Amino acid sequence: MTQLPVPPYYAVIFTSTLATASEEYLSMASKMEKGAATISGFLGMRSARDANGFGITVSYWQTQEAIAEWKANADHLVAQKMGRSKWYEHFEIHITRVEKSYAFGKS
Amino acid sequence: MTQLPVPPYYAVIFTSTLATASEEYLSMASKMEKGAATISGFLGMRSARDANGFGITVSYWQTQEAIAEWKANADHLVAQKMGRSKWYEHFEIHITRVEKSYAFGKS
Repeated sequence: MTQLPVPPYYAVIFTSTLATASEEYLSMASKMEKGAATISGFLGMRSARDANGFGITVSYWQTQEAIAEWKANADHLVAQKMGRSKWYEHFEIHITRVEKSYAFGKS
Repeated sequence: MTQLPVPPYYAVIFTSTLATASEEYLSMASKMEKGAATISGFLGMRSARDANGFGITVSYWQTQEAIAEWKANADHLVAQKMGRSKWYEHFEIHITRVEKSYAFGKS
């Protein structure tokens, strides 16, 4: 995020291992990022995946209600179902409350 | 983590962009993971870095005191200094309290 919000806010940590990394998956992941951004209270999302298919995505939210709204989003529900049945070998979700944050940058 | 702890516990989200990915950096990163694991209250650590040098590391802790102990660890202080002066172009740290967590796995 270019500027960090003032705590408290919320972070959802999604760690996952892909079973298959298809074009379909990448397209859905991109669609999900755009979809999350339409929810009021969405603050940002960062994602990293290594060459072995292990990835971490963190999304930031102003309130728990915004997280609940995104969880219940129709397109997201379809993606969740596809994720379980097809794309992910394993995943973990941590819903967290940000107590403190800081940033460092050379640029 | 093979088995998720019962909340509340804590997660530190470290997102970073590497300026240079040297052997020295990789060696220090590995040393830090081993060092964190020696702290009482350390629950686990997961890390993913993509081909562009953007990475996310999440460490999990039983208490905030354990996080503070790791932050003040002598080897870790050296690594923090090197990180700022040399390795990282940019980083963000979020200290969070885990409210809820769940896992899904096919294996």
